[in-house]
Amino acid sequence: MYELLKGLRVVEGSAFVAAPTCGLYLAQMGAEVIRFDNIGGGPDFRRWPLAGNGASLYWEGLNKGKKSVALDLSRAEGRELAQRLATAPGDDAGLFVTNFPADGFLAYDRLRALRDDLVCVRVMGWADGSQGMDYTINAALGLPQMTGPADDERPVNHVLAAWDLLTGAYCAFALVSALLARTRGQGGREIRAPLSDIGAATMANLGFTAETLLTGHQRPRMGNDVFGAFGRDFTTRDGQKLMLLAITPRQWAKALDALGIGGQVAALEAELGVSFATDEGLRFTHRARLYPLFEAAFAAKTAAELTPAFDAGGVTWGAYQTLEAALSDTRLYKDNPLFETVRHPSGLSYPAPGAMGSIPQDQRGPVRPAPALGQHTDEVLSEVLGLPSAEIARLHDQGVVA
Amino acid sequence: MYELLKGLRVVEGSAFVAAPTCGLYLAQMGAEVIRFDNIGGGPDFRRWPLAGNGASLYWEGLNKGKKSVALDLSRAEGRELAQRLATAPGDDAGLFVTNFPADGFLAYDRLRALRDDLVCVRVMGWADGSQGMDYTINAALGLPQMTGPADDERPVNHVLAAWDLLTGAYCAFALVSALLARTRGQGGREIRAPLSDIGAATMANLGFTAETLLTGHQRPRMGNDVFGAFGRDFTTRDGQKLMLLAITPRQWAKALDALGIGGQVAALEAELGVSFATDEGLRFTHRARLYPLFEAAFAAKTAAELTPAFDAGGVTWGAYQTLEAALSDTRLYKDNPLFETVRHPSGLSYPAPGAMGSIPQDQRGPVRPAPALGQHTDEVLSEVLGLPSAEIARLHDQGVVA
Repeated sequence: MYELLKGLRVVEGSAFVAAPTCGLYLAQMGAEVIRFDNIGGGPDFRRWPLAGNGASLYWEGLNKGKKSVALDLSRAEGRELAQRLATAPGDDAGLFVTNFPADGFLAYDRLRALRDDLVCVRVMGWADGSQGMDYTINAALGLPQMTGPADDERPVNHVLAAWDLLTGAYCAFALVSALLARTRGQGGREIRAPLSDIGAATMANLGFTAETLLTGHQRPRMGNDVFGAFGRDFTTRDGQKLMLLAITPRQWAKALDALGIGGQVAALEAELGVSFATDEGLRFTHRARLYPLFEAAFAAKTAAELTPAFDAGGVTWGAYQTLEAALSDTRLYKDNPLFETVRHPSGLSYPAPGAMGSIPQDQRGPVRPAPALGQHTDEVLSEVLGLPSAEIARLHDQGVVA
Repeated sequence: MYELLKGLRVVEGSAFVAAPTCGLYLAQMGAEVIRFDNIGGGPDFRRWPLAGNGASLYWEGLNKGKKSVALDLSRAEGRELAQRLATAPGDDAGLFVTNFPADGFLAYDRLRALRDDLVCVRVMGWADGSQGMDYTINAALGLPQMTGPADDERPVNHVLAAWDLLTGAYCAFALVSALLARTRGQGGREIRAPLSDIGAATMANLGFTAETLLTGHQRPRMGNDVFGAFGRDFTTRDGQKLMLLAITPRQWAKALDALGIGGQVAALEAELGVSFATDEGLRFTHRARLYPLFEAAFAAKTAAELTPAFDAGGVTWGAYQTLEAALSDTRLYKDNPLFETVRHPSGLSYPAPGAMGSIPQDQRGPVRPAPALGQHTDEVLSEVLGLPSAEIARLHDQGVVA
């Protein structure tokens, strides 16, 4: 971990992807992040993929470097402990990230009664508080009908929980921003981050909604064609699929050079009376005429012939590869200094990453694995809430904590 | 905008999605964000979708609430102005977000010579500095082969630039975190955020890489089936597609109740000797047996019959709808307080969002549109760099600024 956020204490009451990634990013920049869960684990504690012994590889990936406290949240005493944790004193504490309901026992008004300057970042599904998850919000935004081959009408969900991930990182930004405001005298606040608003705003930020308002319909499905520029997957003589991309004039020129089709493209430009170099949109408009030239050039050579020429020529391209191939790819996993092999709660040892960003001036500290569930219950009850050991023993005996 | 970051001055030298969204999130939380571009616009200035007059709806979506300075970055004097802007004095300045190359005229070491405590967040493609964009990094991570119907082997790219978006939000988090560290005496630093590392780390955080190491292969393509739990799109009697999701025991129970198939599922549990309620993974393992029960229940009713029952029963579900339908959906766009109709640089007036997060305690200020290119050149040269008007006039005359 890095130490930018050293000294901060963040409490996380969370499940699934968005709120846990928020806590993960904070922990990997040096904050102390205390996640509380129900005894036996929250709804994400057995989420697939699983290790052979049933431990969740998902859970241990998303909770690296955190402390874990287990509480019986079905009982008033357990809920009160959660409230006290979220609002415990300290200049750099009173920072809470959660996806618990906005109107439940972790409602902002209830917590503020315990700590007036609390910063609370709340992940939500729909903004009105109703249930929504990445899959259902995504379906409501039209993306599954824009995704996939043009000759297939079935909606295609994304495999990557993109809205959850964006929400988690945005929540980390919001939490640190609210802390900065608080240290400058603005007091605390709740920031709500509903997936539905994150999705709706993002589709507008990228121009999708303005386009739909202008044209009357959403962008049609077009397979892997890059909208408004030139790009697609092409197949080499040996059946490899490569993604080629040319948005800028430079990317376009380099692609034509490396493929040796500058002359054919010039002839097409003359025929159509256009210049593809300076207007990437024209490449998109006339892509049905351009594609055959590229398809033939790719089909004439093997990937082993094309790819060194692409790299030497500064072409923007990428091979489609499987994740198992990526694991041997030195650009991604193999020897990547982000990764370190550590032993995880599942008992398995495998490479795991620290902070996603890199700071050339700073030393990366060790990658810290996820805790065992409840591993830090006693430590946190003692150090953060100041409970005496006899009281902690009572809570254990009565099954309020574990 | 909100005012959490009021008083901060951030300079952005950027293009495309990741770095501009970082600046956008900062601006919408109250920071002054000054984006500089080449005279005539950077490589994203004409990016589709376009308005009828050729203005980019994409550019004006991603640069809302920023100031714009236009410089001739091909000339030494223009480059020097960019360096001076990024490093201009001020306690809450010296904050720079960019996707310019790590070893070029905006390299951290060059800028640090002008301002020792500079915070610089740098979006990159591949971590080694070579060209990579969302499309090509995604292809290298295996996701396109995991996405789409199981009966089609073609790789499916995502339409949403998920890696760019995650990187942009993460950069906003990193920038504010580094500012917080600087105000606490840690000095400045560069934080690099290569899409390749963001992608590699995320696939590990979610358990995809551990799963691949354990099984020897990446997760197979499985259409819209939710991995390790129960969920998929189902078709109603009138041909509507609805996404149904059941990860938690509660979600499962409510789905069975609303569809009236509890008895059939219990019979299947008895036959198989399993309990689906307590182990969502078993629902996935046996999904080929479960699907026909759900398909029949969906096919027996129209969407108009099913959806009120789903809502009343607390089912986690969502309709697939187009973006044009979403624009009339009160949960997303219509009457959503995030959105305000403003006039944009294209000359068009249409609804655009402010900050993606909501702060119930604070007033949302007005949504500020994107600037015209170079709209703030003179103001910024005068106020930030302190140039006298005669000098600014000379720079205009010589075409160094516009």
